[in-house]
Amino acid sequence: MKSLRDIGEDALIRRILRGFPGGPRLVVGPGDDCAVVDLGRGPLRLLKTDALVEGVHFLPETPAEKVGWKSVARVLSDFAAMGGAPEHVLVTVAVDAGRPLAWMDGLYRGIRKCLSRHGGVLAGGETCRLPTGAVISVAGEGRVGRRELVLRSGGKPGDLLLVTGRLGGSIAGKHLSFTPRLAEAAWLVRELRPSAMMDLSDGLAKDLPRLAEASGCGFELGELPKNPGCTREQALADGEDYELLLSVSPRRWRAASAAWSAAFPRLPLTVIGRLREAGIAPQLAGGWDHFSPSS
Amino acid sequence: MKSLRDIGEDALIRRILRGFPGGPRLVVGPGDDCAVVDLGRGPLRLLKTDALVEGVHFLPETPAEKVGWKSVARVLSDFAAMGGAPEHVLVTVAVDAGRPLAWMDGLYRGIRKCLSRHGGVLAGGETCRLPTGAVISVAGEGRVGRRELVLRSGGKPGDLLLVTGRLGGSIAGKHLSFTPRLAEAAWLVRELRPSAMMDLSDGLAKDLPRLAEASGCGFELGELPKNPGCTREQALADGEDYELLLSVSPRRWRAASAAWSAAFPRLPLTVIGRLREAGIAPQLAGGWDHFSPSS
Repeated sequence: MKSLRDIGEDALIRRILRGFPGGPRLVVGPGDDCAVVDLGRGPLRLLKTDALVEGVHFLPETPAEKVGWKSVARVLSDFAAMGGAPEHVLVTVAVDAGRPLAWMDGLYRGIRKCLSRHGGVLAGGETCRLPTGAVISVAGEGRVGRRELVLRSGGKPGDLLLVTGRLGGSIAGKHLSFTPRLAEAAWLVRELRPSAMMDLSDGLAKDLPRLAEASGCGFELGELPKNPGCTREQALADGEDYELLLSVSPRRWRAASAAWSAAFPRLPLTVIGRLREAGIAPQLAGGWDHFSPSS
Repeated sequence: MKSLRDIGEDALIRRILRGFPGGPRLVVGPGDDCAVVDLGRGPLRLLKTDALVEGVHFLPETPAEKVGWKSVARVLSDFAAMGGAPEHVLVTVAVDAGRPLAWMDGLYRGIRKCLSRHGGVLAGGETCRLPTGAVISVAGEGRVGRRELVLRSGGKPGDLLLVTGRLGGSIAGKHLSFTPRLAEAAWLVRELRPSAMMDLSDGLAKDLPRLAEASGCGFELGELPKNPGCTREQALADGEDYELLLSVSPRRWRAASAAWSAAFPRLPLTVIGRLREAGIAPQLAGGWDHFSPSS
């Protein structure tokens, strides 16, 4: 009998989505960083859900406050990836009944800090019992102006590929304390008008082909901005970078690249390659797949 | 060191919510069946998240299609409880990597059936790996007209207490195949203008005191409509009834009670008691608490 690890995550998702109809207000359904809902007037609404699992996304000994921060920051990172901003979040926590109350206090302290730093209001959620371990599932609702929305699918051959920050080695600590790139995304949307954008969660090796495919393009890849001590392989495959990957027309980039350093002097924004015609792409190894035998 | 089972679910929720600010668009925050967001025009938006845990809400041998149905129907039941309707759902599934693909197919078949029967569009979600077992977390977004919104908090002393359907014994099967009372709620809102309403998930013994407290009232309780073979204790304490509990002015009830039987001939709507002044209430034993020692 076939199991999930025989098929892998992307194929699984394609399979389970078969037969689900769209809706009249659902502008963007499964497959982008967020779902997009059009209520007919005002900003578009963004919907996103994301879960952390003890033993997969964090360890039993990880400080609960960092787990709380990460659980919300991941959802905020997806709002950034669409050019949007968070409004309300709902937090579902399933944990064993013997869990220390202090752990729960720490978790919600981290959630509160992340929301108060980056925006978003706790609107609800749930606590329930898990036989063992912990799962934190965060659902978020946000907004994006109609002219600010950036999808994964708008890239064109010839567009430059850029990433914010440096890649690789997130497991050493960044994955628990990263900054969701909301302010950076707002700037990029305003100044560079990206043709496509997403956040890097599973590693460039997995995520870049997804952006290229959604845009109907191939790609070429040059040097990568790496975190200290990281190899190119790690920058490609480690995952959990929570940086932005975007495509931009060369003309826009020439006009605005100098302004970036003035706006965000401590965060690099690096050209790492270029979108090409479909079919032209290097094979990239690695990246995170929840259900592959090696993950 | 204190753990979650030393404090119980309601006290835990009060504790973790301390220090979270509200937001300008959040009309109703944590504590009702759904959060309510006011975007300034058009219908109000409803937000809800709810999780099912293997070994708690269903068994490893429960058919996956029924798990899928239940996971979505619970959220839809909460939209009904506010007088609203579902629009979009996001489904997060965390399962072990060895889970049969056929289980996943069954789960999403159940989700699809429930949405196609009762409304709502799958807008996104996530699959991720859990070391063992399964958690299905469903986030839903819905709408309710400004004049249709019913909270838990609007009940007044003297209002009659009513429930749809019959209570108790849900574990025998109803908890996996119940009908979310969306159509019934729409009728009740239109014809009876309930002063307060909620859905019964943890058992009348737990849920009725919550509605009364939210309304600043006490209550008295008479005969209950019981499922065949159930005692009064079971009707109070079993939980997972997914029926509507509502309070209605006696005048409204006199005017419209006959019309209910014509609209829903197969579903009883029964007066079970009355809201009273605060402080007057019988002690009710039982009902579901995720973190109590006996659950």
